[in-house]
Amino acid sequence: MHSMRIGWIGTGVMGRTMCGHLIEAGHHLFVHNRTRAKAEELLARGAKWCDTPRAVAERSQVVFTIVGYPRDVETVILGPEGVLAGAQAGAVLVDMTTSSPQLAVEIYEQAKAKGASSLDAPVSGGDVGAREATLAIMVGGDRQTFDGIMPLFQYLGRHIAHMGSPGAGQHTKMCNQILIAGTMIGVVESLLYARRNGMSMEAVIDVIGRGAASSWAINNLGPKIARGDFNPGFFIKHFVKDMGIALEQAARLNLSLPGLALANQFYIAAKAQGAENLGTQALFQILDRLNQRQEA
Amino acid sequence: MHSMRIGWIGTGVMGRTMCGHLIEAGHHLFVHNRTRAKAEELLARGAKWCDTPRAVAERSQVVFTIVGYPRDVETVILGPEGVLAGAQAGAVLVDMTTSSPQLAVEIYEQAKAKGASSLDAPVSGGDVGAREATLAIMVGGDRQTFDGIMPLFQYLGRHIAHMGSPGAGQHTKMCNQILIAGTMIGVVESLLYARRNGMSMEAVIDVIGRGAASSWAINNLGPKIARGDFNPGFFIKHFVKDMGIALEQAARLNLSLPGLALANQFYIAAKAQGAENLGTQALFQILDRLNQRQEA
Repeated sequence: MHSMRIGWIGTGVMGRTMCGHLIEAGHHLFVHNRTRAKAEELLARGAKWCDTPRAVAERSQVVFTIVGYPRDVETVILGPEGVLAGAQAGAVLVDMTTSSPQLAVEIYEQAKAKGASSLDAPVSGGDVGAREATLAIMVGGDRQTFDGIMPLFQYLGRHIAHMGSPGAGQHTKMCNQILIAGTMIGVVESLLYARRNGMSMEAVIDVIGRGAASSWAINNLGPKIARGDFNPGFFIKHFVKDMGIALEQAARLNLSLPGLALANQFYIAAKAQGAENLGTQALFQILDRLNQRQEA
Repeated sequence: MHSMRIGWIGTGVMGRTMCGHLIEAGHHLFVHNRTRAKAEELLARGAKWCDTPRAVAERSQVVFTIVGYPRDVETVILGPEGVLAGAQAGAVLVDMTTSSPQLAVEIYEQAKAKGASSLDAPVSGGDVGAREATLAIMVGGDRQTFDGIMPLFQYLGRHIAHMGSPGAGQHTKMCNQILIAGTMIGVVESLLYARRNGMSMEAVIDVIGRGAASSWAINNLGPKIARGDFNPGFFIKHFVKDMGIALEQAARLNLSLPGLALANQFYIAAKAQGAENLGTQALFQILDRLNQRQEA
């Protein structure tokens, strides 16, 4: 693959690492981030700073975005100084933020109207997956656009799937988060039961983590809970955002998902208790406190 | 290990297969079951029929029980024609039914009073695990008794763990079932969301079944749901029994487990709809119907 001019907007923990892989691969990177300090490492490695997303797009054939919330996606792509304002004909916009499927469709339509195209491509696998380039990438958009971007995706992830039309990447990510929500409830309630019965959580995990009850969560987050390690991993504040999108999407479909709603309420309580910057396994503490006698 | 006289009470799908492994190993088996027809296969292979659990115990050094509900365990072990009434001094009673931890303690105390001993040793791994002798066996009781029975457990399972004092095997099994309850909610809600968005459930499972959302359930029961296969596996009626025990135990501890309670309610609805003899993955149908427009 010959060297390309690539834009990268959003240089948080995930974005910085991912962007680094593209520099490593010999591409010319044009970067922007709300906080410039978080881009310095990439600039030191040869990436060029741009003051606005629009300026990034004016210099790039492909523009990746991975920012915080859907409203940030909207600003960064559709705003007056956004990517679309500067996008060249034939450019491809790839939004890797976990965001709203409807917004993905809107971006797609506006990009088409400008002679550009877009993909929604949220990821799973966290900071470790970003570092090791083993992310799962769930992609919505035109097949032909997907095929064109595939060589770049392969620098970033391992399981890269075209899931359907615009928005389908985001919908797949919602399936992933709904699945995690239920599983996390099972993990924390199970371990709480174990501890309240005076059992070793490690010993219990060692048995139940092998068979029909096994999951990535019990085997990876379970041992963290057992040793009182509630550091992120995956931030509670981001998970609450994702569940909010999923619940909104489900409501649009007249789809009642009581388990997801329950998990969402628990995690809102976690935020209320100040745990938004802890990892999702800190739900254990929330349910533990729910069941503790309080002093009058 | 020299040949032993072993009792086996309960020759349902699991019990029959497990008992067969002990015959295969060269032991003398004495069997009883509420319905004799279900023991015929074992009798044809050399097991001896006994008319009561008591008669089984009178002939056996070790007596295994694996029956339906805690009340069955109580009848079969503590009843007037039960195992304890016929137990020899030095005999070991091994209850492999998923049952109440308090009942396990009561059996242990009554066995001790007669100069016998007992283990609670519920399993996980289902009919396939029983057939392939790969069951997980979670054991409560005295360590010395556990060590003595270990050579027999090894004919039946692979992951065999001594979890603590009498009842600890049952408590561990409860942890396993609580974990499954939450995970199943995640699995069915996630796949329902996928289908309602017009996505291929198989394609979604292929992506989300690899990373932080992955579980045995999504990868083994998910594809069954996708192809409309709701056959057991693990019966809904048995899962409802297990969740009932877990909720009762949690309530004894003043332990509120809202996720488990929600799963239990869903599965009670499944029974209400006549799905008690389907597999646990049939929860998908229940939530699907919950979200379907009804004709007036």
